[in-house]
Amino acid sequence: MQLAMIQDQIVSMEELEPVYLDRGTFFGDGVYEVLRSYDGKIFTLEEHLQRFANSLAAIGIAGVDMDQIRSRIQRAFNAAGTANAKIYFHITRGSAPRDHIWGANLKPNFFLTISELADNANEKTRGIAVSTHPDWRWKRCDIKSLNLLPNVLARQDAARRGCAEAILVDEAGLITEGAASAFFAIFGQTLQTAPLTANILPSITRKYIIQAGENIGLEIVEKSLTSQQAAGADELFIAVTTKDIVPVVKFDGTVIGDGKPGKYTKLLIHEFRRFTV
Amino acid sequence: MQLAMIQDQIVSMEELEPVYLDRGTFFGDGVYEVLRSYDGKIFTLEEHLQRFANSLAAIGIAGVDMDQIRSRIQRAFNAAGTANAKIYFHITRGSAPRDHIWGANLKPNFFLTISELADNANEKTRGIAVSTHPDWRWKRCDIKSLNLLPNVLARQDAARRGCAEAILVDEAGLITEGAASAFFAIFGQTLQTAPLTANILPSITRKYIIQAGENIGLEIVEKSLTSQQAAGADELFIAVTTKDIVPVVKFDGTVIGDGKPGKYTKLLIHEFRRFTV
Repeated sequence: MQLAMIQDQIVSMEELEPVYLDRGTFFGDGVYEVLRSYDGKIFTLEEHLQRFANSLAAIGIAGVDMDQIRSRIQRAFNAAGTANAKIYFHITRGSAPRDHIWGANLKPNFFLTISELADNANEKTRGIAVSTHPDWRWKRCDIKSLNLLPNVLARQDAARRGCAEAILVDEAGLITEGAASAFFAIFGQTLQTAPLTANILPSITRKYIIQAGENIGLEIVEKSLTSQQAAGADELFIAVTTKDIVPVVKFDGTVIGDGKPGKYTKLLIHEFRRFTV
Repeated sequence: MQLAMIQDQIVSMEELEPVYLDRGTFFGDGVYEVLRSYDGKIFTLEEHLQRFANSLAAIGIAGVDMDQIRSRIQRAFNAAGTANAKIYFHITRGSAPRDHIWGANLKPNFFLTISELADNANEKTRGIAVSTHPDWRWKRCDIKSLNLLPNVLARQDAARRGCAEAILVDEAGLITEGAASAFFAIFGQTLQTAPLTANILPSITRKYIIQAGENIGLEIVEKSLTSQQAAGADELFIAVTTKDIVPVVKFDGTVIGDGKPGKYTKLLIHEFRRFTV
């Protein structure tokens, strides 16, 4: 006999809904994306789909029809009717009794949510405080997987310190990225961020910020920073799909610049917006 | 408006069952245990419950009543009526719209399955082959969390090579443990395994094997091994709750000893069994 138990209730394996056997829950065996729309238009959909396809391939989930995914996203977005929407979706390898080794006949599970983006004008105008946390994540953060417990713990630690984001620092003392964002520093007229490696998500927002930086005449340097270097920057900001650029005005308690969003950060916010219309 | 989509079906947030918003799926934000019974008796239940409590505390899931967990396990085990059972259970932080930061009012989700243990007499008699894989896991493997994608990928890689387990090797070239097991080597009359650190699960089976080793007169050395050292061992074995000791007779293609389970490994299997009756 086989059985399951949900909270206090015993359930036979036959009665058990497959969602309870999702490998996404047992193992985090899945990958995800977060999209946003600006004024009714989904931003960089194709690039997110391409990265999603890369993540699926990297963990060996095959047979996902990307045209079907695209049409599901469009259909849900149209049904939601939200102009400034956050679109989250994931695919897990499927549902089956727990076994690390996956069977050949698994059918991937797709799940999506759409919600209205919170207005973050305040964060953009005033800037945020961030705090550092050891980078406890796995060694393939180039894959956008559901293994996000270290990110959750780091962000919760930041929140406890009154900070809006955790900046992750590896064992060599170098900043990799934010727990849910890319991380940038400006020194003079140089825009610096960590190079893309297996430890860093190939952020789509990052790519457009580098483009925006070039457009406004900044020199781009892809080189990792220490915490000390970051604390001494002229300007800092984080970048994330749902909020694009958010100025950082305090780093581990150290005030950055004059404690207000820097001039190049503001120029970049302005320049970035041009991509979104 | 907010909505969700499950496969092709659009669902309003009001209709959506909470299980779809489990933080276990979004983030792997939960911890688990695997128990087994021998002939109708659950082995080392209290030690597993203690480790589970430690894992819950380490990720800040509070308010779980361990007496309630114990009684659920006993009730499900009695209902299953399986003498040699594998008991899996996890607790996630709860269900809520996706946000790294957790709310104060989340109610943890408990889920358990019981299945009959497959007979592994063959593996014990003949031994298994193992292959190495880079240890891609996060930096807190002392916490038994649901972030198991690197373990899944490593085991699948091993299976593709015709091996029954992946042995994980860190960036310094040292073996940490198996993807789902502890790892032991015997040199002469010395039993060697990696010391417990933040990179290694405090395996309960490991603890009993060390006890068994002392009982049969082996010297115990807690020191990490390189792959090369492991391949040159007199005997190798892995240890896991569901199978206790499984001899390893091939390591990355190198035959260990005479290609059959070693004499001390067999003595340890015998000695370990005494703990389980």
